[in-house]
Amino acid sequence: MNRPWSTTDPTRAYCTVRQRTEALAAPLGPEDQVVQSMPDASPTKWHRAHTTWFFEEFLLGSDPAYTPVDPSFRYLFNSYYEAVGERQPRPQRGLITRPTVDEVAAYRRGVDAEVIALLEHGPHQLLELGLHHEEQHQELLLMDAAHLLALNPLRPAYDPSGPHPSAPDGGAGGGWIDVAGGTIEVGHDERLEDVGFAFDNEGPRHAVLLAPFRLSDRLVTCGEWSEFIGDGGYRRPELWLSDGWAAVRSEAWDAPAYWRQVDGAWQVTTLAGERPVLSDEPVVHVSYYEADAFARWRNVRLPTEFEWEAVARDRWGCAAEQWSGAVWQWTASAYLPYPGFRPAPGTVGEYNGKFMVNQHVLRGGSCATPEGHSRPTYRNFFPPQARWAFSGVRLANDGNAAT
Amino acid sequence: MNRPWSTTDPTRAYCTVRQRTEALAAPLGPEDQVVQSMPDASPTKWHRAHTTWFFEEFLLGSDPAYTPVDPSFRYLFNSYYEAVGERQPRPQRGLITRPTVDEVAAYRRGVDAEVIALLEHGPHQLLELGLHHEEQHQELLLMDAAHLLALNPLRPAYDPSGPHPSAPDGGAGGGWIDVAGGTIEVGHDERLEDVGFAFDNEGPRHAVLLAPFRLSDRLVTCGEWSEFIGDGGYRRPELWLSDGWAAVRSEAWDAPAYWRQVDGAWQVTTLAGERPVLSDEPVVHVSYYEADAFARWRNVRLPTEFEWEAVARDRWGCAAEQWSGAVWQWTASAYLPYPGFRPAPGTVGEYNGKFMVNQHVLRGGSCATPEGHSRPTYRNFFPPQARWAFSGVRLANDGNAAT
Amino acid sequence: MNRPWSTTDPTRAYCTVRQRTEALAAPLGPEDQVVQSMPDASPTKWHRAHTTWFFEEFLLGSDPAYTPVDPSFRYLFNSYYEAVGERQPRPQRGLITRPTVDEVAAYRRGVDAEVIALLEHGPHQLLELGLHHEEQHQELLLMDAAHLLALNPLRPAYDPSGPHPSAPDGGAGGGWIDVAGGTIEVGHDERLEDVGFAFDNEGPRHAVLLAPFRLSDRLVTCGEWSEFIGDGGYRRPELWLSDGWAAVRSEAWDAPAYWRQVDGAWQVTTLAGERPVLSDEPVVHVSYYEADAFARWRNVRLPTEFEWEAVARDRWGCAAEQWSGAVWQWTASAYLPYPGFRPAPGTVGEYNGKFMVNQHVLRGGSCATPEGHSRPTYRNFFPPQARWAFSGVRLANDGNAAT
Amino acid sequence: MNRPWSTTDPTRAYCTVRQRTEALAAPLGPEDQVVQSMPDASPTKWHRAHTTWFFEEFLLGSDPAYTPVDPSFRYLFNSYYEAVGERQPRPQRGLITRPTVDEVAAYRRGVDAEVIALLEHGPHQLLELGLHHEEQHQELLLMDAAHLLALNPLRPAYDPSGPHPSAPDGGAGGGWIDVAGGTIEVGHDERLEDVGFAFDNEGPRHAVLLAPFRLSDRLVTCGEWSEFIGDGGYRRPELWLSDGWAAVRSEAWDAPAYWRQVDGAWQVTTLAGERPVLSDEPVVHVSYYEADAFARWRNVRLPTEFEWEAVARDRWGCAAEQWSGAVWQWTASAYLPYPGFRPAPGTVGEYNGKFMVNQHVLRGGSCATPEGHSRPTYRNFFPPQARWAFSGVRLANDGNAAT
Repeated sequence: MNRPWSTTDPTRAYCTVRQRTEALAAPLGPEDQVVQSMPDASPTKWHRAHTTWFFEEFLLGSDPAYTPVDPSFRYLFNSYYEAVGERQPRPQRGLITRPTVDEVAAYRRGVDAEVIALLEHGPHQLLELGLHHEEQHQELLLMDAAHLLALNPLRPAYDPSGPHPSAPDGGAGGGWIDVAGGTIEVGHDERLEDVGFAFDNEGPRHAVLLAPFRLSDRLVTCGEWSEFIGDGGYRRPELWLSDGWAAVRSEAWDAPAYWRQVDGAWQVTTLAGERPVLSDEPVVHVSYYEADAFARWRNVRLPTEFEWEAVARDRWGCAAEQWSGAVWQWTASAYLPYPGFRPAPGTVGEYNGKFMVNQHVLRGGSCATPEGHSRPTYRNFFPPQARWAFSGVRLANDGNAAT
Repeated sequence: MNRPWSTTDPTRAYCTVRQRTEALAAPLGPEDQVVQSMPDASPTKWHRAHTTWFFEEFLLGSDPAYTPVDPSFRYLFNSYYEAVGERQPRPQRGLITRPTVDEVAAYRRGVDAEVIALLEHGPHQLLELGLHHEEQHQELLLMDAAHLLALNPLRPAYDPSGPHPSAPDGGAGGGWIDVAGGTIEVGHDERLEDVGFAFDNEGPRHAVLLAPFRLSDRLVTCGEWSEFIGDGGYRRPELWLSDGWAAVRSEAWDAPAYWRQVDGAWQVTTLAGERPVLSDEPVVHVSYYEADAFARWRNVRLPTEFEWEAVARDRWGCAAEQWSGAVWQWTASAYLPYPGFRPAPGTVGEYNGKFMVNQHVLRGGSCATPEGHSRPTYRNFFPPQARWAFSGVRLANDGNAAT
Repeated sequence: MNRPWSTTDPTRAYCTVRQRTEALAAPLGPEDQVVQSMPDASPTKWHRAHTTWFFEEFLLGSDPAYTPVDPSFRYLFNSYYEAVGERQPRPQRGLITRPTVDEVAAYRRGVDAEVIALLEHGPHQLLELGLHHEEQHQELLLMDAAHLLALNPLRPAYDPSGPHPSAPDGGAGGGWIDVAGGTIEVGHDERLEDVGFAFDNEGPRHAVLLAPFRLSDRLVTCGEWSEFIGDGGYRRPELWLSDGWAAVRSEAWDAPAYWRQVDGAWQVTTLAGERPVLSDEPVVHVSYYEADAFARWRNVRLPTEFEWEAVARDRWGCAAEQWSGAVWQWTASAYLPYPGFRPAPGTVGEYNGKFMVNQHVLRGGSCATPEGHSRPTYRNFFPPQARWAFSGVRLANDGNAAT
Repeated sequence: MNRPWSTTDPTRAYCTVRQRTEALAAPLGPEDQVVQSMPDASPTKWHRAHTTWFFEEFLLGSDPAYTPVDPSFRYLFNSYYEAVGERQPRPQRGLITRPTVDEVAAYRRGVDAEVIALLEHGPHQLLELGLHHEEQHQELLLMDAAHLLALNPLRPAYDPSGPHPSAPDGGAGGGWIDVAGGTIEVGHDERLEDVGFAFDNEGPRHAVLLAPFRLSDRLVTCGEWSEFIGDGGYRRPELWLSDGWAAVRSEAWDAPAYWRQVDGAWQVTTLAGERPVLSDEPVVHVSYYEADAFARWRNVRLPTEFEWEAVARDRWGCAAEQWSGAVWQWTASAYLPYPGFRPAPGTVGEYNGKFMVNQHVLRGGSCATPEGHSRPTYRNFFPPQARWAFSGVRLANDGNAAT
């Protein structure tokens, strides 16, 4: 997948990304855009406003003469930047019914005009970060909308063509990709001219030593997951991490999120509405705990993020193997800084580093990820109990293990 | 105050009440109408739909041939009628972004047409209950909107002329009304022809024995409340019930709800926006605990509901004394059934009786109460920690006590 | 029942009560005496120390020259007297493993010696209050021990002869006692010479007006309660107050506290260990919610505290009717001050008045109540969800109602 | 440090370890031994019983003819072995006042006799695991006792000579130990004859690739920590991980656990009682979040567990550098399985693997660790917010970084 924009034409890039956000919000009415379905999720309206605030704060605001559109927005739409100041508490983002959705649209237009004017004077060093940031929120917007609508007993569709991972055309054969191991370089190499953008957490590039391993050439499917359920997967503590089993009990998990049984058959609520689960589509909306338990049930394991990267970088374009475009893939790696990692100085240094605890890395990219947004070094991350991301599973095993 | 409708013309009465609800919702956008600001509050949209469901369930639904507008609404918009079946859990009313506000408006119109057609065939015994029920929700709609908007850091106004209790024209002198005591009749007498409607909890009429007492001829004012604050009212445990003091500590109360200090002066957020507190307006949005502590600070007490009724029935029309039209007035009486009270048979019997524990009675009526909705026997009720009702204080004392 | 002590001999009275506490604690080892089984309960050791602190604070401490045994005990063993100062938070009473049980015993002996010396100089006005206070804690000690031991999977007995309500000798016939109603005097009359001690909340004596009513001549039995269970009593929301039904669901109640089914038969864990439920013994350890639901199931109601008092004062000695000595009896009356009630000035004024909200009155006295401690005007009180008191049910009904 | 026992003499080893547990419990009375101070801690009595149950279940119980001392103990004293069956919920371990402390002592003696008899017939493969397991609980016993006693306002001492990390004799100079990096072997090598016991989580031994780095030759001291506090360390969000800052706010942390300010000077409550903080003693009872924030404040970082191991294995005996014997040292490494790790088959396989999420590795060993229990490959682990372990900090940095 190629990114549909390039910073060689900053204005065009800016408009492309900004318009895509608006297009994603379009199927949602004002009611849908304002409600917060859980503390981890944010209202659509908030995503639209926050991404705008990011440009206002970090691009427009770098001019000391700049007058904010509305000073209160700095409080309302800051996400977590401590250096910017106090902000609306995250669990209370759904209480802000004003500004209205229309007023937020106007806020977007106002900032857009200013940013476009700014870009006419030349490139801005934080423009690219701002665009990638907004693309991240595009996926969050879809995740959060899916969570909200699935809680509605009416199970309304976001859009009849709403994204959901599908079985690949000419899917891979379900075999293992064997890798000999050895010392490899991982991470983003910022010294290279042509590598393009990467977030700070993808570097520094460094060498790691891998033992021989194998990686599945496809994702775990819903059919396989149904077998896991049928074999008592959610009722057998020996398959689970201790914290995972506690989650199974307290959350009453018995299937992936958004699944339910109707007349003995599994149905799934997707952004396109509710429909039967299909056996050959990749399983999605499972937690790290579930991914880990499934692997244990199969007597294999999850890949580390470096095993994953070592294989994916060479096969990234292989659609049949679904390295991206279907689901984010849980890895066995905790989300920690790479050797030598230092956050950028200043406020934007809060972007990634301060979340490096209590989370696991996911690699790949999903059906909800903007085209061209991901890459083999990309490190997504969520807490192990999270299920509302488009998260699925690719299995791995030791190189010399029987499967 | 006279009620602006009468069931002698059922269709007109129905239309009058139904249109008033729509008028109250009009200043609120779709965003405002869908969010639930706390578990005790409900979204505007839900009030509009629930009052409609009440007519559909209990009037239209009494015809076995009736086909519901949407079968799922029975689940979504039932409030607490166990006999009707399962329902959307109360704390999750704010998750239902669909049906949209427009769809709820259409639901209202659809049911209205059916009810009007039904009423052409003659009166329905539950029509009057349905109209009083909807009037109760009109006040709840305003309470809930006030709560939601006050949580917004922007403090938006519901309406520049939104209701708030004001100082009375020609206010009473702040003296005591002395009552000799003795045996009096209280409660609604359903045997009388001309008494009009009352809820089941207002009867049976019965005799009670009162000792001599006195009642203030006016409400406690914000000026008096400021003195209470200034005298350490919120910092002195000896003034408080034990549970009240626990609430002061856990909720960090230091003034009535919606008050805050700006540059050393008290401001209040009302439905008309934020403005300075006025000394001679009645205090509002205080809990029972606060009302009780204030009375103790003044070395007097709150009236019982029968003391209140004994005086109010004879002075109900005296606007200067604000028996109604300003604030609901906390009484010392727990909300319990009157002797001989039996709920009505069937589902509507769940209307009042099952809430008769853990609450205190408020008497009177507020600036947010529909005109003509209240009466001297009316029993409103809230838990002792509730502050989002338009609740204030009238003081009482023993007849022979020095004040 | 006659009180086994009299303040005509203060020293003997003091020693009698104090020794009884020690006798009650004797079957409990140091482990049992230190653990707090829930925030509402207190460790045995704490009861022993707190009752001692009461005498130290209010009798010995009234002498300015008095030196406390240990200044920290004022913090550790104050229960809720705000005027005395900060104190160990109630839910953390079980963390105080020091002073040890032996050290608390020594504290008791030390204070006892001082109090006895004090009493030799003449009576102390707070002695009687202190003794009644300690008797209240004697019952709490048994309630709390029963709660703790019942949580132990081993279900150990406190004592083979531990108290539990039993069927009366020559039990009453299960008929109604009819009362004509009218104006009666209730409450403790402190003007009478011979009435003896009463707590402040039992007065002032005052007149109330009662409609005709009837009261059962016996308590509800376990056999009747089993019928209630068998008839779906815990599964039918129409029988319950709304808050009660919420408690049934959240607490998973399906029988009185300490009952469980073993091989299809109900067992009860008592202070004497676990044994089968007996049909003709009074039901005990039920909440107000359960008492109220049972009465509704029987199409009757609970008595008010004044109906109860009007009958009990004349039949107090009738053991067959179990007005006292078996279980405390829930009344329909909220725990509120009597007309004209004013707490005593000073710290002891915190004794009763500040708890007059969110509770219901129980009348009578239980098998765990010290002999002679109760009387017809006695007002015990607990929140409506409490089940660990020795609380049971006597039914009432309107005088002209069919049963 | 050498281990004071060897399995070459199994009976003597068994008796040595078992007696040490009893010696550690001796300063604690029955009250201290039964209370559970928080859900993460366990009562002393429970530790004494659980370690006994471990031998009963896994050694004695492997004989099908064995009759348990008390069948209920299997329920009461199982910690987390799902394969063994249901068990007393962890947060409720403090409710089990029976069996008493004396009865638990008798349980220990009874099992000891049986185990000693068993060992006379030859070695048992799980004996060594059982002894190391009991040594782990010896440290937990001290941690839990310290937590309990520190919550007591009296701040009682466990023992005047209770362990607490002290400044080293001839402490190291506070310089960096520079390491060139490269490929090294880490973990326990079970193929070696002479390496002795290790837990399953310490292997398999494998190669890792390290960049150049440096490690401090001493631990962070209380004096340094006081500077951190004085420089606003607990008030500056930019120093903290996001989850760490949330913990600072919600837990109101302003210093290490068990510190408080008295008259402007820091005091610390230790197992030997409360005393002033000493500048040159190692800081202890800090969370991972605090360790990480401290390192960021110093512009350095925490070591990975492999960096730590690479240095410590060669300097293990250097008491001046305090690799062990003072505090466990937080590492930047999440607690995850080593490549190729597979839990042992059967119930004991639940020992370590199922906790490999949401925790960080600590290396070294503390003043509370039994002599000889630790080693350079030892992997201790706690959640990042835990502070009741004897956890402290050794700093690291990149090899080419200026400090």
